[in-house]
Amino acid sequence: MSDTDRRHMAHALSLGRRTMGRTWPNPAVGCVIVKDGRILGRGWTQAGGRPHAETQALAQAGDAARGATAYVTLEPCAHHGKTPPCADALIAAGIARVVAPFEDSDARVAGQGFARLRAAGIEVTTGILADAAGRDHQGFFLRVEQGRPMVTLKLASSFDGRIATASGESRWITGEVARRRVHLERLTHDAVLVGAGTARADDPSLTVRGMGAVSQPVRVVASRHLDLPLMSGLARTARDLPVWLCHGPDVPSATRATWKDLGATLLSVPVRGRQLDPAGLLQALGQAGLTRVYCEGGGQLAATLLAADLVDELIGVTAGLALGAEGRPSLGAMGIGRLDEAPRFRLIETQDLGGDVLHRWARG
Amino acid sequence: MSDTDRRHMAHALSLGRRTMGRTWPNPAVGCVIVKDGRILGRGWTQAGGRPHAETQALAQAGDAARGATAYVTLEPCAHHGKTPPCADALIAAGIARVVAPFEDSDARVAGQGFARLRAAGIEVTTGILADAAGRDHQGFFLRVEQGRPMVTLKLASSFDGRIATASGESRWITGEVARRRVHLERLTHDAVLVGAGTARADDPSLTVRGMGAVSQPVRVVASRHLDLPLMSGLARTARDLPVWLCHGPDVPSATRATWKDLGATLLSVPVRGRQLDPAGLLQALGQAGLTRVYCEGGGQLAATLLAADLVDELIGVTAGLALGAEGRPSLGAMGIGRLDEAPRFRLIETQDLGGDVLHRWARG
Repeated sequence: MSDTDRRHMAHALSLGRRTMGRTWPNPAVGCVIVKDGRILGRGWTQAGGRPHAETQALAQAGDAARGATAYVTLEPCAHHGKTPPCADALIAAGIARVVAPFEDSDARVAGQGFARLRAAGIEVTTGILADAAGRDHQGFFLRVEQGRPMVTLKLASSFDGRIATASGESRWITGEVARRRVHLERLTHDAVLVGAGTARADDPSLTVRGMGAVSQPVRVVASRHLDLPLMSGLARTARDLPVWLCHGPDVPSATRATWKDLGATLLSVPVRGRQLDPAGLLQALGQAGLTRVYCEGGGQLAATLLAADLVDELIGVTAGLALGAEGRPSLGAMGIGRLDEAPRFRLIETQDLGGDVLHRWARG
Repeated sequence: MSDTDRRHMAHALSLGRRTMGRTWPNPAVGCVIVKDGRILGRGWTQAGGRPHAETQALAQAGDAARGATAYVTLEPCAHHGKTPPCADALIAAGIARVVAPFEDSDARVAGQGFARLRAAGIEVTTGILADAAGRDHQGFFLRVEQGRPMVTLKLASSFDGRIATASGESRWITGEVARRRVHLERLTHDAVLVGAGTARADDPSLTVRGMGAVSQPVRVVASRHLDLPLMSGLARTARDLPVWLCHGPDVPSATRATWKDLGATLLSVPVRGRQLDPAGLLQALGQAGLTRVYCEGGGQLAATLLAADLVDELIGVTAGLALGAEGRPSLGAMGIGRLDEAPRFRLIETQDLGGDVLHRWARG
């Protein structure tokens, strides 16, 4: 638990974040190999999920890894998957000590990685920066444990919580810096999710722009009836960049065929009441491999996810303008009767984003 | 414009803030007297507006003031009011140099204070920390120039801009630290203002609590028909602490007499449409001497003031809970058709207030 351990683990975490949003269904892991205070190798899970962070860092360190300490942000794997077990690679390289935040909760690893290391005489230290690592790997853990991805909900609104005027005008309520931040956040998630109403009203592209050449998140639309315009930007580009459409089980096969022909991936989701069941929606996305989903509304989908307690992180961007009660609300109806029924979140961070206020919250 | 000048002026400003909210209709001024780097005297306008800051600081400095520099946060007065002119007191004390942020805009002073000092051979420097002083004296200037007090509008709401559930439950959306902050802000304003709906629904006391023994702000309710409950806390305490009721001109004299008997001060305000004219309301408050008014809603009064561009500072407190579209909105209807008609504010400050987000904005 020394400062040195924390410093190197923070380094490893920052490396792991480099490919966050591009390693699913695998976790985005970072690894630093250190001996006598010198950094010998740095690695992170590559886009697509392979090679693993440890392999990369060991290759950089080469023979110098013998006797060194490896900082990894998750328990090294012990099973033969598409890559050989990282635990074995660390042993073979002669690593003397492994430092990790906590044990992996993937049932395939679950302490076996550490057990294998210890059996080989390697000292294992856990509990370093566990909170930060827990946030970074939250989506991976949720999928393993509950079958669903982590959900980040972003809502940008006026001072009084409105996302458009009564006539629907919404460009722009927040400023350029805040809008750019949205693209950065899309990039660190596996997928961007919107409801059908937003897809129809805004014809959004949901791509990452202005960040250089990057891979793009999956674009997911929740549309019970699959009644999206065929001339939309999403329809036109579904062949080039992934579009996943989550729909109810009763959508006619002709409609499904049309969207499949356009290049979209279709996911059938159970219906609850008159809407897609939010838990079923996320189970379907988890089954398809997603670990981190960035939901940008609209108000009805956001309210449904919140009411079902399925939002893990809440991001608000508040602009300094007032629209009044005629404006469109950021959240739809939630059916909350008493204050103590309202989902509560814990403040993580607040920031001046070029004149708008960013506030990040975690599930209470 | 030296760092030394700025440092002493910042000190003088902080002294002036000590009685902010308790000197109306006078400004809350601070004064520091310095010679050879030593602070010889400190003063601030006393509660009630007299004695003035300069008099206090000079009395402390005594004979040592000869040859010293006086930092004052507003141009020293040159007219005989209820106190002798401060410019004359500075001259008599042998002050060598006077530093101020800018010239007073009170027509009774307007450069005459500086002129008198210069005629007596005193060096006068202006332009030090003018922005900060401008914010501190904003209410005083607005009353002198436009006849109305400064308006600070505070809105505490859920993440999605709601101030209560559909059934009206609002205790508590924000936490204890944020609620305590509200009492501090009431204290630094001359008056607290709410609409009749809030007065009826919440039966608020509108007093400063938990801050030790302090003088209390005037409690103002805007109620067109003067239809407030006679059994309310405000009615019961109107004899002990000031309650001012702003009403339309057509309120029956019997109703007025009842409230006068209870100890309230009545201000008749013109009506525009079906509501009190917001500009007329503020003119009446300015005429009665108020320079700084802290409006705590409700949504309709807040929306009316915003729509009339009469809000100078906007304070948001956002809590990490979601109430959904059935919740009561923080702002009533504003009649905004297009985004560019919405009043815009400039972010001054953002702060974590015990888990809620405080954001302060100034008129764009």
